[in-house]
Amino acid sequence: MKNPVRVAVTGAAGQIGYSLIFRIAAGEMLGLDQPVSLHLLEIPPAMDALNGVVMELQDSAYPLLRDIVPTDKPEEAFDGVHVSILVGARPRGPGMERKDLLSANAQIFSAQGKAINEHADPDVRVLVVGNPANTNALIASHNAPKLDRRQFTAMTRLDHNRAKTCIAEETGAHVNDVRRMTIWGNHSATQYPDISHCTVKGRPVVDLVDEEWVHNAFIPKVQQRGAEIIQARGLSSAASAGSAAIDAISTWIHGTEDDDWVSMAIPSDGNPYGIRDGVVYSFPVTCTDGSFSIVPDLPIDDFSRERMSATEAELFEERDGVADLL
Amino acid sequence: MKNPVRVAVTGAAGQIGYSLIFRIAAGEMLGLDQPVSLHLLEIPPAMDALNGVVMELQDSAYPLLRDIVPTDKPEEAFDGVHVSILVGARPRGPGMERKDLLSANAQIFSAQGKAINEHADPDVRVLVVGNPANTNALIASHNAPKLDRRQFTAMTRLDHNRAKTCIAEETGAHVNDVRRMTIWGNHSATQYPDISHCTVKGRPVVDLVDEEWVHNAFIPKVQQRGAEIIQARGLSSAASAGSAAIDAISTWIHGTEDDDWVSMAIPSDGNPYGIRDGVVYSFPVTCTDGSFSIVPDLPIDDFSRERMSATEAELFEERDGVADLL
Repeated sequence: MKNPVRVAVTGAAGQIGYSLIFRIAAGEMLGLDQPVSLHLLEIPPAMDALNGVVMELQDSAYPLLRDIVPTDKPEEAFDGVHVSILVGARPRGPGMERKDLLSANAQIFSAQGKAINEHADPDVRVLVVGNPANTNALIASHNAPKLDRRQFTAMTRLDHNRAKTCIAEETGAHVNDVRRMTIWGNHSATQYPDISHCTVKGRPVVDLVDEEWVHNAFIPKVQQRGAEIIQARGLSSAASAGSAAIDAISTWIHGTEDDDWVSMAIPSDGNPYGIRDGVVYSFPVTCTDGSFSIVPDLPIDDFSRERMSATEAELFEERDGVADLL
Repeated sequence: MKNPVRVAVTGAAGQIGYSLIFRIAAGEMLGLDQPVSLHLLEIPPAMDALNGVVMELQDSAYPLLRDIVPTDKPEEAFDGVHVSILVGARPRGPGMERKDLLSANAQIFSAQGKAINEHADPDVRVLVVGNPANTNALIASHNAPKLDRRQFTAMTRLDHNRAKTCIAEETGAHVNDVRRMTIWGNHSATQYPDISHCTVKGRPVVDLVDEEWVHNAFIPKVQQRGAEIIQARGLSSAASAGSAAIDAISTWIHGTEDDDWVSMAIPSDGNPYGIRDGVVYSFPVTCTDGSFSIVPDLPIDDFSRERMSATEAELFEERDGVADLL
């Protein structure tokens, strides 16, 4: 039997955490032959709830689950972990400005970055889910100087999955038939879901859908899907976010499929698409042997360039707002 | 590619449903090579929330997921389904007597039994999770005269998993090493978790634990575990219940492991342990080729017999309370 992989999840008693942890314990993320230990971080007021989650994990009698480490101390949460999924973040409260939100989260993610730097396995892979995810990932990476910046990513896989589903519906295909989708930029309403290179059963999507539909229906729908779900459920999307986190880590570790790629928000440094260095930006990537590479040489038209630049500008604005922590 | 298996889940927008559905869609219950279609039943006031769940299922881009059928009509929910997981049930409201609760649920499960009888695949397997689960399963089966009673089961797998975990903790073993656990009777506080035949790494558990601990700590702990989790989380156990439902169906279809068994609440008719015919009672069973058999010839001591009879008596009392619907 393999040694267990240690996985940290922050905000573990929250809704996304609750949708995510049991699936990791069941082996969905790392494989059905891979034992796993869970390090679960929460804030002190949520420790009772977290203990309830731990009881339920125990009660599920998962064959692959080894240790469970529930804690409110980042140094314990990240001790020796190979994968860190940073879900917990400060939500926007009443009367809170965007700037206050950025700053409150910046404090959390700089502390976690430091703890990961000191305590995690040197080969740790970090996925930030908590918003503002890209900038939180940037802050965490800047506070972890011993690690490579490329060990810190932010999640745009949910947007990627949403965009694929939207194209599948519009073209009457199954989502499995949709390939080469790209989400560029920030996991926010400025993100740019780009179908320029996307195919359905090998045919270019641009030949199958109406340009007006792409501009006025598809793009805003993907950008606003989170709000649509809150309106229907009365709660934000938790299970689909958890599912996307599983996909994101699983792909990073096990690789992308042939003839396809995924979207991951990664350091922009040295990218071939002219996005300035210094932010965490979503690109089309392929993954092999546990590492990712940006898909090169995609032609970028004016429409795309404009949207890629708009979301880039937002990320630099977010960066400026937390400059004291970088 | 195989034809999709159609799975109905009732109470699909509730908390257990939300923990369960995404894992079924991901292939955890029926296997990673088995496409699945989901029929999701809710009551009319929950249809907005259910539509939110459907959006999230779509957004998760599951390779194995085919149709999604969200509905508030039982005849659509059970149309052609091969597996039915009946989660939705009326919870006890303020001032509601146990008798009122039984009766309110009896109405729901008699209607669902009729719809399953008329519309489901003739080989459908039904698992009742909604409480009072055993008696709800009994009512559903009595209202489905075209089907074999043995197609209707109630879930004691969560109790089974909890009991195994409890023994693993006490003996310092992993839950994988605990075998031959038995839950007898009703999925209620009268259930009898029986370690008489249970082993840890092949050794009898009765030789490893203290009898006083079994009587005064282990048995009440398993019986009251649900309440303990509500107290910690402020919410009832949803993810572990969903996980146990996945285990229950998966074992029923794919079989039990060699040298082990599981607990399932099944029709008591003709059982070899002297439990009277006419209720749905949890027994130790092995599963092979999609069907279950009660483990025969287990010696039953006086302590066990007394507890097996007490939970039997409760089930007949519940049965008397809903006699008009049988």
